[in-house]
Order: sequence, then structure tokens, then C-alpha cells
Amino acid sequence: MNKQNLIGGRNPIIEALKSGREIEKILLSKGENKGSIKKIVGMAKDKGIPIQYVNKNKLDEMANTNHQGVIAIASAYKYKTLDDIMKRAEERNEAPFIIILDEIEDPHNLGAIMRTAECAGAHGIIIPKRRSVGLTSTVAKTSAGAIEYLPVVKVSNIGYAIDELKNKGLWIYGADMDGEDYYFDKDLKGAIGLVIGNEGKGIGRLVKEKCDFLIKIPMKGKVSSLNASVATSVITYEILRQRT
Amino acid sequence: MNKQNLIGGRNPIIEALKSGREIEKILLSKGENKGSIKKIVGMAKDKGIPIQYVNKNKLDEMANTNHQGVIAIASAYKYKTLDDIMKRAEERNEAPFIIILDEIEDPHNLGAIMRTAECAGAHGIIIPKRRSVGLTSTVAKTSAGAIEYLPVVKVSNIGYAIDELKNKGLWIYGADMDGEDYYFDKDLKGAIGLVIGNEGKGIGRLVKEKCDFLIKIPMKGKVSSLNASVATSVITYEILRQRT
Repeated sequence: MNKQNLIGGRNPIIEALKSGREIEKILLSKGENKGSIKKIVGMAKDKGIPIQYVNKNKLDEMANTNHQGVIAIASAYKYKTLDDIMKRAEERNEAPFIIILDEIEDPHNLGAIMRTAECAGAHGIIIPKRRSVGLTSTVAKTSAGAIEYLPVVKVSNIGYAIDELKNKGLWIYGADMDGEDYYFDKDLKGAIGLVIGNEGKGIGRLVKEKCDFLIKIPMKGKVSSLNASVATSVITYEILRQRT
Repeated sequence: MNKQNLIGGRNPIIEALKSGREIEKILLSKGENKGSIKKIVGMAKDKGIPIQYVNKNKLDEMANTNHQGVIAIASAYKYKTLDDIMKRAEERNEAPFIIILDEIEDPHNLGAIMRTAECAGAHGIIIPKRRSVGLTSTVAKTSAGAIEYLPVVKVSNIGYAIDELKNKGLWIYGADMDGEDYYFDKDLKGAIGLVIGNEGKGIGRLVKEKCDFLIKIPMKGKVSSLNASVATSVITYEILRQRT
């Protein structure tokens, strides 16, 4: 964790929330629930910022300064809007290709996916507000600079976001071990949203039901799953291959 | 670094070398060059084990025990032979597909490549003795179990190994940014050795000259390179696609 993105102390956090600075998450010492902490919790809820209760020891380890029982993790980068992504596709005169990450937790995976997505010409990434890593400094570093170019949109609900993409004419493909067809047997040249699930659990049930197609990657060995960023890369480059 | 793979102290290391236990590397405190250290250096040279001179502080940090100025890093797993790889292809009745890693240094990359290679049905991996990470415990962990199944061969010279593969009828493809053709425009169904270069420097000049073809991965963004394990995965799955 890069300490530059940590805000410790009650007043600094209230000021950050007021200023509109993007906050990934607020960590509260267990048992804290008085005065200005209540105010922080209220403001965070209004803005849909996740709150996590942790042991005071953890906060002590994270912060150099007096944290007064609360630390906010600020975003390392600015989020964009779905319109930004669609505009990017339009400007390039390409069918939109958006990667939807359903609760990716490992910052190295998110960074690696951003790097490949940018290299392969995807137009943007959608992540959920909750249970997902955000644009932290580790993600920025692992993305090898892609974070500067590739728009990332944070949404409250992945299901609603998929509905919106469908309305815009995208077909939604979910990468799933139980998918019917191999990814390379589908025509991936049109407007596409590619859904990649959580590292351990895969795509959530409700999100899976929203997918138009579930596609699988062949597994020929005894190890039965690929790393999430590798799975994304393999399908992403097949999309680029078909479009080339 | 898993401390279980560290052998500290002069006599334990001499015994390990005598017993034939596989040693990845020997770390020597700078300035040490007497008595039994000389003996260790001599034995290591005979076996082609790399020796690295480091500050004594580094050894102190690594070892719990009294290291007497020298630490050996033992292999976490057993290496195999080229015959083991060829037999694997033969048993499956498949054209051999071998991944040759020219000086991959990051254990996470080697582990990730092993995981994908095993999933995609590659028959084995070749790495060089020097300037390459070996089968350490971090590699084992990142490989997600693939290290138990996928044969890895360690060779003194990648160039000679390529000559041997050519004699066995393999075509050698090097992944290189300056390659002439896109990887997906080549027919990859036959017996193949795929060469992947070092994370920073790419494929070495002499090894590159040994390749029958240099292939490139299209880069559509501003970030101009993929992570080594992602590049390997993308080409590896294209080979599987063409063979399916």
C-alpha cells in the first residue's frame, strides 16, 4: 500500500469527502462510533463508499500519523464514465469492446488486466464499487502506464451496467468454466462486453444470468483454472485477432 | 523466499553438493575466499551452479542460522530431461510443443507461465542454468500446482538446446516486437519450440539468430509491451486454438 494514498484522522477525512476527492474505502477501528466518526460514516454511505471495520493494530501499522481510529484510502487515479468509453470506440471507428470485472480483488490482477486491455485496444473497463479493488497505487504500478490511458468506470451495480450496455447494442460474453462454447468458436467481431469473474468464485450468479453467452477456455492439463488476468488476456487477444 | 530451501553454513552446503541435491544458486559474502569456501566455489563451478557475491547483511537477513558467509538456494523441485518432454508429447500422440524461456528472472512470471502452459497442454519448458530464475518455492506457489505435472528442463546453453530441438524436427518461433508476422498469421500446428525472452531485454541476440521465425503480438495502445507471462499465454492459446 502506498502511504501517499492514505488519509488518516477525522478532520482530514471529512475535508477529503467534502472536496469530492475519490475515496476507495474507509477503514474504521472496531468499536468507534461516536461524534465525527458518525459523520464520516454518514457521508461515506451517501457517496456509496465501502466501510470496513478492522483492528486498531491494523490502522497503527498502516499510518505513520495519528489516525484517530479512521483511515481513508484515496484513489490513485480518476474514474471515467461509460460515455468516455463509448466515445473512445467511436473516435476510433471501432465496435465497442469493454471488459467488465465482477469483483476482481487482487491489485496485481487488475493492473495486469489494464495493461493487456490497453495493449490489445479494448476501449475501457468497468468495475463495481464494492468487493473490488479500485485504482490504487499498486494497480497503477502493475498497469505499466495503462492507467493513464485506459478509462475505468466504477458502478454501483454490475447488473444494471450490463443492462445499459445491452441497450447500447453490446453482446455480453461471460468467461465461465461451464460455458457451452470455446471462446474461439464464437464470432467476436461485433460490439462486445466481456465479463470476467472473481479470482476464487468466478462470475456471480445474478451477473451470469445477465450474460448473453458463456464462453470457456479449453483446459488440457491437470491444473483446472487460469489466473484471472491470463484468462482475460487470452480472450482479449482472440477478439483482436478476429477483428484484425 | 521460503527458508526451507535455504542451506546455510559451509559443511551443510558441501554435503548438499556431494549428495547431488539440486542447487539453484550459491550466495557468498563479499571478500570470503578461504579454505572451505574455496572448496564450495570449486564444486559449484564443476556443477555449473551460479555463484553470486552479496553483502553479509543480505545473508544475515536471509538465514536464521549461522551461515558462515555462504548460503545455498536449493531447488524446490526436480528438473527433468528433454526426453521426458518428448515422451510426453509422444504419449499424447501430439506434435511436440515446448516453451523455451530465455532468461526469465521474475519467479511470478515463471510460475504463471508454468500454470498457463500446463492448462494449455504444452509438453514442457526449457530454461537456462544462468541468469534465470529456477524452480524456487515462489515459482511453485505461483504455478498453482503445475510444477507437479509439467516437466522443466535446465540447460547450460539455450542455443545448443534449440539446435537439438531442430534436429528433432521442431520449428523454432521467437516472440519478438520486431517480428515480421503476427503470431496468428502463422501455421502453428506442427512441432513447435516457442522462445520467450527476458522481461526487460527480450530474446538475446544469439538465441534470436537461432529462431526459424520471429513473430509479434499486435500492440494497439500506447503501452508498448505485454508482461512476459501474458505474451506467452496469448501465443500458447493460439497454438492450442489452431490445434483444436
